[in-house]
Amino acid sequence: MSENAAGILSAVEDLHGGVRVELKEPIDSQEFATLLSASLSQWRLQEKKGVWIKLPIKLANLVEAAVKEGFRYHHAEPDYLMLVKWIPETADTLPANASHRVGIGAFVMNDNREVLVVQEKCGKFKGSGVWKYPTGVINEGEDISAAAIREVKEETGIDTEFVEVLAFRQSHQSFFSKSDLFFVCILKPQSFDIQKQIVEIEEAKWMPVEEYAAQPFIQKHELFNLVAKICLAKSDSDYSGFTPWATTTASGKTSSLYFNHQYLNSILTSDN
Amino acid sequence: MSENAAGILSAVEDLHGGVRVELKEPIDSQEFATLLSASLSQWRLQEKKGVWIKLPIKLANLVEAAVKEGFRYHHAEPDYLMLVKWIPETADTLPANASHRVGIGAFVMNDNREVLVVQEKCGKFKGSGVWKYPTGVINEGEDISAAAIREVKEETGIDTEFVEVLAFRQSHQSFFSKSDLFFVCILKPQSFDIQKQIVEIEEAKWMPVEEYAAQPFIQKHELFNLVAKICLAKSDSDYSGFTPWATTTASGKTSSLYFNHQYLNSILTSDN
Repeated sequence: MSENAAGILSAVEDLHGGVRVELKEPIDSQEFATLLSASLSQWRLQEKKGVWIKLPIKLANLVEAAVKEGFRYHHAEPDYLMLVKWIPETADTLPANASHRVGIGAFVMNDNREVLVVQEKCGKFKGSGVWKYPTGVINEGEDISAAAIREVKEETGIDTEFVEVLAFRQSHQSFFSKSDLFFVCILKPQSFDIQKQIVEIEEAKWMPVEEYAAQPFIQKHELFNLVAKICLAKSDSDYSGFTPWATTTASGKTSSLYFNHQYLNSILTSDN
Repeated sequence: MSENAAGILSAVEDLHGGVRVELKEPIDSQEFATLLSASLSQWRLQEKKGVWIKLPIKLANLVEAAVKEGFRYHHAEPDYLMLVKWIPETADTLPANASHRVGIGAFVMNDNREVLVVQEKCGKFKGSGVWKYPTGVINEGEDISAAAIREVKEETGIDTEFVEVLAFRQSHQSFFSKSDLFFVCILKPQSFDIQKQIVEIEEAKWMPVEEYAAQPFIQKHELFNLVAKICLAKSDSDYSGFTPWATTTASGKTSSLYFNHQYLNSILTSDN
């Protein structure tokens, strides 16, 4: 029970003058409504700002009571719903929800200037005859580079080493009201024997990069055409994309900074 | 009412063998439970796959009934909750929710190699004396380049022209369980008279880029240090980041492809 002796919901303070309540055990919705109302009175007196309530899906019976007290939805994951209420009269400075889905596309190019291409069993390219590079959506908490390596392995059985991000695309309204970031990556194969995935992939093969770029569908659509030309530029010249550099943030978390490593030596040895 | 003559919820078919229900008008939760149960029986006979139910927040009384029928949460926005249920015995291929928040940082550099820096009234740098470049979170549906221009204008009153993305950082577990993508941008000022934002910004000024990079906090933290050096490399040399190129996707939506434009001419004039 998130209830303390005084008939108030247990809450922890956050760093922004607000409180967080995480309910875990079943509670009657009427009892919850009473507790929530008393708690809000107290938090108002204490001049709290944002109030967060995390409700596991098994406590779906409490959603209505929270909404009746003026809470709105903040975000939801499969197993919980986060509600929030801004108490002060001032403008709400609550952070927004996640706004983007992130996908990757993976050009795997071998030393013969062939790229690894697939035909999919479903999706918009089904039955079109278009050979495309492996693509997919990043899993929760997954690095761009790890997602590219994983998707190639899943779809074709090929092991790869990540090289760099060649380009990225931002688009909007791609999925409900959310935006989309799609990273076009280039990788080096570490194995060559294709073992295609049965469920999603119809065919997989190595194809000369010029032949990939010359496909009528690719030529016809500016975005695909541009990406194919960037891939050609990478194979022909010293086109530089962004390479990841593992680093640690001020708060101690590891993250990756992607940038143009052509200047890496001068960047790493500069005095400032 | 999303109810048709046969006591079944009105639904539209989606492109993936599933159906979507969007409830708009108030309905008693018991009546909804009956309709939903009958509808699920029909959809099962019709071999439907994913069933989506969009519930506006004013219909929070219906959440519990949907959860009791085996629906889980998919995502939520302030004014609605999306629930989903996968009917077949096969593995669920429902798309994931948005996974990333997207932020920008904006180096605005003038012809005297000075960058536009601010001190914030709140947040982790409050009272630290650190001069930082303007940063912020992308609004729903906003382009990276537009967000950088907007944040600079809001915080300092300076008009700018977007130049390029110098680098980007991906980090995880930054906000609830979500990941974070942060794009470091460089912009050119179009005006020079600073008018700082009252609520969030303590001070704003132009500072020589070497002085910015030499700040002890920046030197001490690898990520800040690396970004400062990339900015210096941009001002000193021909460091190439990614520049946006407005394009149209196969489905007709406009989007921006960011890539290294150093090779733009050869890319745009190549035959393939």
